[in-house]
Amino acid sequence: MSSVLVVGSVAYDSVETASGKRDNMLGGSATFFSAAASLFAPVHVVAVIGQDFQESELKFLSDRQVDFSGMQKHPGKTFSWGGKYSDDFSSRETLFTHLNVFEHFNPVIPAQMRHTPFVFLANIGPDLQLNVLSQMQKPRFIALDTMNFWINRSPDLVLEVISQVDGLIINDEEAKMLTSDNNLIRAMQKIRKMGPKVLIVKKGEHGAVLNTDGGSFYLPAYPVDNLIDPTGAGDTFAGGFMGYIAHKNNIENTTLRKALVFGSALASYNVEDFGLSKLKKISKDDALNRYKMFQKLTQF
Amino acid sequence: MSSVLVVGSVAYDSVETASGKRDNMLGGSATFFSAAASLFAPVHVVAVIGQDFQESELKFLSDRQVDFSGMQKHPGKTFSWGGKYSDDFSSRETLFTHLNVFEHFNPVIPAQMRHTPFVFLANIGPDLQLNVLSQMQKPRFIALDTMNFWINRSPDLVLEVISQVDGLIINDEEAKMLTSDNNLIRAMQKIRKMGPKVLIVKKGEHGAVLNTDGGSFYLPAYPVDNLIDPTGAGDTFAGGFMGYIAHKNNIENTTLRKALVFGSALASYNVEDFGLSKLKKISKDDALNRYKMFQKLTQF
Repeated sequence: MSSVLVVGSVAYDSVETASGKRDNMLGGSATFFSAAASLFAPVHVVAVIGQDFQESELKFLSDRQVDFSGMQKHPGKTFSWGGKYSDDFSSRETLFTHLNVFEHFNPVIPAQMRHTPFVFLANIGPDLQLNVLSQMQKPRFIALDTMNFWINRSPDLVLEVISQVDGLIINDEEAKMLTSDNNLIRAMQKIRKMGPKVLIVKKGEHGAVLNTDGGSFYLPAYPVDNLIDPTGAGDTFAGGFMGYIAHKNNIENTTLRKALVFGSALASYNVEDFGLSKLKKISKDDALNRYKMFQKLTQF
Repeated sequence: MSSVLVVGSVAYDSVETASGKRDNMLGGSATFFSAAASLFAPVHVVAVIGQDFQESELKFLSDRQVDFSGMQKHPGKTFSWGGKYSDDFSSRETLFTHLNVFEHFNPVIPAQMRHTPFVFLANIGPDLQLNVLSQMQKPRFIALDTMNFWINRSPDLVLEVISQVDGLIINDEEAKMLTSDNNLIRAMQKIRKMGPKVLIVKKGEHGAVLNTDGGSFYLPAYPVDNLIDPTGAGDTFAGGFMGYIAHKNNIENTTLRKALVFGSALASYNVEDFGLSKLKKISKDDALNRYKMFQKLTQF
């Protein structure tokens, strides 16, 4: 077994969906990622919190071998975000974004973490992602998340960081935007030529695709009939994926495919309750159960 | 091996896509269906053509054991349809619909075909579909296609025919419309309660889902990077599906799953050229090759 480093956000989220409303829940990309990845491997978190942050909220993660020694605490308030989903979850409106201490986040990777073999750069600015890469010592596999915001705002920096990573995890709309191609098959071919040997495109309710030199792998989404709150699904997916490959300590095609199934399994749990409520409760056995359900849903 | 009866249209299609324009190509639901189904089992066609119809165009189907003895020839012109697809194929505009002899189509099932075990009711009015059902002698498995046009126009008749069939093949938008539910998982549950023991929902580029008492089965779409003309893809899919179960002569879950894969395989070939051009050229071996590709795309 190996370990994973994630650089991202720890936040307080306020969310409104057809199922209800919750204020100031624990959230953030690094948090969702860790909750998922830690079911499979030890996780190091590099992030920033403000003085208002209740560190006791992270206890369930510390209990799962998540190491917060790389988390900075700065004067000011923690990053907070508010959003409202449409009743059918097809769109979401951002109600507010208070970057607070996250605005001047300068990710410093502690010396003892610079050799971590598996690295996930969550959705932070591409300048910060490049900064993190420059601090790492020959990681085995670096995966990147990015978002339409950065593709629009700093396309050159996004392309630069994409060219330096092994894996890109992106959604279908972002893939089309990044390549200016509305055919996803062609868009994927174009992204592979930008550098990443491993490309994962998330398609929400339509599942996910993995593309490598070993071919493509398509997995449907787990059919969730009680969708409560999709916040963090992408980071949970990435956490399950990276956690599993760190656990197996290899990036063979079979491992990557299974990792994608575990990522999807955990993301499907995550959306069944608000914030991190569901991820708090589940175990590796639950992930394995849903993995087996995926086998039943797809074999012929 | 058993045989299949299809009741639907034989038509001349004029199609414009990003790849070009073709006028008066052979088309129609019964035609696409037969071209696919006949790779696996004998097919009987009940349809109507006009006096302008060039019957030599059907020779490639007769050569594949498609029986046109149930096809009526009436005074007037053959049904013709014209459509234009948007460049990204996300929408299509109907340029004209000349029902011609199809307007007064009265499907009469010849006596020797009334015991055909596998029946497909293509997209014709639900009154005609009920009429066909009343003529059949205890078929083993009846599957139905319907379309938003009929769901809007004659919802009660559509529900009536749905309650009388074993299988419904429908697309995701139609499933949501039929149930007034925008969650596909719930919509599928509701449709199953309307009667059909076998439900297939087609999701275009996102693949297809089979739902039975034996659970759900999800298959992605075959990744086509040279989409030329999607006309007839749904009927081709249905043809591959029904042809394969007739070939196996059972409706066990394993058969239904494999049938869905063959249907998807043939639909993916169909869209790679205009009209029936591609289906004319391919063999059962080609279908099997793409079936094997589906295994590679989905196994983990």
